[in-house]
Amino acid sequence: MSGAMNFKNCGSLLVTGANRGLGLQIVDSLASGRFSPAKIIATTRTPARAQKLQELADKHPNIHIVTLDVVSQESIEKCVEEVGQLVQEEGLNCLINNAGINVVADFHTVTAEKMIENFHTNAVAPLMITKAFLPLLKQAASRGQAGGSGSMGIQRAAVINVTSLLGSVELNWGERANNFKWYPYRTSKSALNMVTRCMAVDMEPDGILCMAIHPGWVRTDMGGSEAPLSPEESISSILSVIGGLTEKDHGSFLNFTGEVLPW
Amino acid sequence: MSGAMNFKNCGSLLVTGANRGLGLQIVDSLASGRFSPAKIIATTRTPARAQKLQELADKHPNIHIVTLDVVSQESIEKCVEEVGQLVQEEGLNCLINNAGINVVADFHTVTAEKMIENFHTNAVAPLMITKAFLPLLKQAASRGQAGGSGSMGIQRAAVINVTSLLGSVELNWGERANNFKWYPYRTSKSALNMVTRCMAVDMEPDGILCMAIHPGWVRTDMGGSEAPLSPEESISSILSVIGGLTEKDHGSFLNFTGEVLPW
Repeated sequence: MSGAMNFKNCGSLLVTGANRGLGLQIVDSLASGRFSPAKIIATTRTPARAQKLQELADKHPNIHIVTLDVVSQESIEKCVEEVGQLVQEEGLNCLINNAGINVVADFHTVTAEKMIENFHTNAVAPLMITKAFLPLLKQAASRGQAGGSGSMGIQRAAVINVTSLLGSVELNWGERANNFKWYPYRTSKSALNMVTRCMAVDMEPDGILCMAIHPGWVRTDMGGSEAPLSPEESISSILSVIGGLTEKDHGSFLNFTGEVLPW
Repeated sequence: MSGAMNFKNCGSLLVTGANRGLGLQIVDSLASGRFSPAKIIATTRTPARAQKLQELADKHPNIHIVTLDVVSQESIEKCVEEVGQLVQEEGLNCLINNAGINVVADFHTVTAEKMIENFHTNAVAPLMITKAFLPLLKQAASRGQAGGSGSMGIQRAAVINVTSLLGSVELNWGERANNFKWYPYRTSKSALNMVTRCMAVDMEPDGILCMAIHPGWVRTDMGGSEAPLSPEESISSILSVIGGLTEKDHGSFLNFTGEVLPW
């Protein structure tokens, strides 16, 4: 976990969908790790119902819970305002777009509404959230540059999109394809991969790193009980990868183990 | 144009968005070619306003104009019913999902609504249309098999999705990326590519070929006057590729010249 120690240089980090699953584990692992960011901002749609997150925040004063409904532009803007007050002129160093849903439907059960619902949450929301946080990310990136760490990474500013191997169009073939015939989910993650590349191109001049990561198949509410990885294992590996990101990873699609995946 | 002669073995072909641009050119080239399908079904949202298409249909009795609003499930179902009566027990041999829009927006002007609008028309509509035509495609595929032409191709049954090079996540990098920063369009075409692969997997047992093709950059209303290709040139090449498709092209992403493109 060499990369994880780099979080000591990450002043502030925001993770969406932090009430459960991988998002909650990211907050937990970062807060209880030896190299915790100064400010961990954990967003969830309904903080009052996020009991485990509340318990974590009670133990770790660097966890800040902020309300965010990722598909509401009004909610996004309120969240940015609140986060701006938290981070002040330091800006936001790391934005992890983790919130996602799986609207399960195969060829026979898929509808236009299911496709659009999954697309909105998994691909459009990360775009609109990143757009809204751009001023705070730019602020962090420009300070990072002034401080001498001109290269890209979480010590400066980074946007991490939690995508899926199932979003790889190339890998959706043969045996692999027959296991998960999830039209809305697969399509939304392919779309998120394109959004990642588009944003990487646009944020490069500001020195903001942008990439997509596959968390593995994890035993969460979404992954189910048969998944091979525990949330701890997945997030330990992911945080190591994220902590070690440099400009060579800008615009990339990486496995939780750090290998490059095909689009 | 060796592939184009194969259309003599294609009993019926349907193309969406046939009122203008590439769709109109497909109808024109097929109807006036030496090897015209027995039935060319040209769909458009408002036939009364499709003057050029009406003129073509007046000249060529094998052109049948059918109303289709690609984002309306009700309209899709009515269209299938009408086409079913046209093709009878022969089924539909070739479905070309050509209708598409470009909701132009860059990082600064993009909104959730623009993303969803483009996604609906360019990625969801081809899926819902193909689903609805599945019984007619299966019918054609099973007849093709009985007739001895068991391999895949337009003589049996095929779904062609008109996608774009701009939907390639891999190619969206470097100089190429800086030219077309169209978030909604690029994302919708990546999504369409995933839809293509998903459907290819699901339609394979029925012997229905499914692939995605990039038409090149063409001087249409969408492509603009600076584009290097005329609609005639693009469609001449595309029809040659489509006519020559075999099982090796199932699930592929091809350029209008026939080369394989990266996802």
